Amino acid sequence: MTRQEIIENIRRKQSFLCVGLDTDLKKIPPHLLTEEDPIFAFNKAIIDATAPYCVAYKPNLAFYECFGLKGWAAFEKTVKYLRTNYPDQFIIADAKRGDIGNTSAMYARALFEELDVDAITVAPYMGEDSVKPFLNYPGKWVILLALTSNPGSQDFQMMESGEGERLFERVLRRSGEWADAGQMMYVVGATRGRAFEDVRRIVPNHFLLVPGVGAQGGSPEEVWRYGRNADCGLLVNSSRGIIYADSTPDFARAAGAAAQTLQAQMAALIAQH
Amino acid sequence: MTRQEIIENIRRKQSFLCVGLDTDLKKIPPHLLTEEDPIFAFNKAIIDATAPYCVAYKPNLAFYECFGLKGWAAFEKTVKYLRTNYPDQFIIADAKRGDIGNTSAMYARALFEELDVDAITVAPYMGEDSVKPFLNYPGKWVILLALTSNPGSQDFQMMESGEGERLFERVLRRSGEWADAGQMMYVVGATRGRAFEDVRRIVPNHFLLVPGVGAQGGSPEEVWRYGRNADCGLLVNSSRGIIYADSTPDFARAAGAAAQTLQAQMAALIAQH
Repeated sequence: MTRQEIIENIRRKQSFLCVGLDTDLKKIPPHLLTEEDPIFAFNKAIIDATAPYCVAYKPNLAFYECFGLKGWAAFEKTVKYLRTNYPDQFIIADAKRGDIGNTSAMYARALFEELDVDAITVAPYMGEDSVKPFLNYPGKWVILLALTSNPGSQDFQMMESGEGERLFERVLRRSGEWADAGQMMYVVGATRGRAFEDVRRIVPNHFLLVPGVGAQGGSPEEVWRYGRNADCGLLVNSSRGIIYADSTPDFARAAGAAAQTLQAQMAALIAQH
Repeated sequence: MTRQEIIENIRRKQSFLCVGLDTDLKKIPPHLLTEEDPIFAFNKAIIDATAPYCVAYKPNLAFYECFGLKGWAAFEKTVKYLRTNYPDQFIIADAKRGDIGNTSAMYARALFEELDVDAITVAPYMGEDSVKPFLNYPGKWVILLALTSNPGSQDFQMMESGEGERLFERVLRRSGEWADAGQMMYVVGATRGRAFEDVRRIVPNHFLLVPGVGAQGGSPEEVWRYGRNADCGLLVNSSRGIIYADSTPDFARAAGAAAQTLQAQMAALIAQH
């Protein structure tokens, strides 16, 4: 999917919401456990209920891999279901991979060729040759971890060089030499507030994938205030607040309502712009 | 597996060799492609031929995941085969994971509980709460990326703080507060030469997992010279140089011979000690 298509989807739907499919068998409504593939049954219902209100889905691979073969099958089915029924949705494999060149190339092949997702989250620690193999696919995206929303982000991401550049800033600056805003996005946590301004100084044009709204404490308003650019430039993710809004057989309707609430907030922000 | 058991295995086998199971359908002997599970058939033959000469195996998850369901099945079978037939081998899932707490916990559950590997490689970028969930399993290990052997390791790992501390050194120092040498190891690339001395100043007692011998240019002698400690403290990995030593039906014998050659070099180094 091109940058322009993402921007058009955001305009048309008045939403920059990404729904995180962190599907956990321990948390889904118990009545689904009798289904042949409970994870996929849950995802399918959530997708059908929330698709009008979002522009992207982000299945987190850890939640699928922890169920081994069955989990992987559910992940594949979920991607295919989205591709077939909601071709305008941007599909992010939240994998946080990052390995030496030939290994990153294997991951790129698995996720871009075999599964046809639109984007993969990548960890920057191993540097350029760990990221570049993901950039060999036109129309596919790398979403690089920059400044995350968890407490441990203080440990290394905020480390400051002798020249006063923090590690996350160096990641933004260096990786800007590897790909432009048409193929790279960055993860910046919603709880970051003013730090979005520091991010935008280095990458004014890029899209940011912003987790941490809802359960983790960030708000769409604050993200919008400090993080948006002229093209919106934001994909704000919510996982638990939407998909586990309710655990009764009515869960899908509740998830749709939660997504709609966020979409309405986003539409109001876009309207002010 | 405890640190003491690893040390005893190294003494008994006079080897600190880890065999990397980076199994690629494009590189395995063509006659195996008619097998029901070519990846597992290859791994089984390689394991049977090399087990006398090594103390650890390191399947790289990327190589399995890129084949989706079939790849994941081959990975599971490989781990089970090792567990059942070679219980003294240390099994490292080379996954390079690292995510927020609840996601890391899912990976830990998948790899330590469902699959029962001994160790997981973890990327440090997201900090303490991305690593800690892997430390909740007694007898299981975290192997944290510190200083890798690829060219991109220069991009961020060598970044120097105002106080003159490089990022990889901060990773070593900080993570030393999360777990001791009985539960944590570090990845340090074999091509690092004198940098091993800098590593050892901060983590004198920890085991180091050292990739980059052979195809990537590092030598066991240099790693031993600069990286060993009183307990050996090294697991030196070789992948391609062993498992693709030959592509004829004689491949397993050739792999065994390549492993034996490295083991003999290691035995000579241990004897000098």
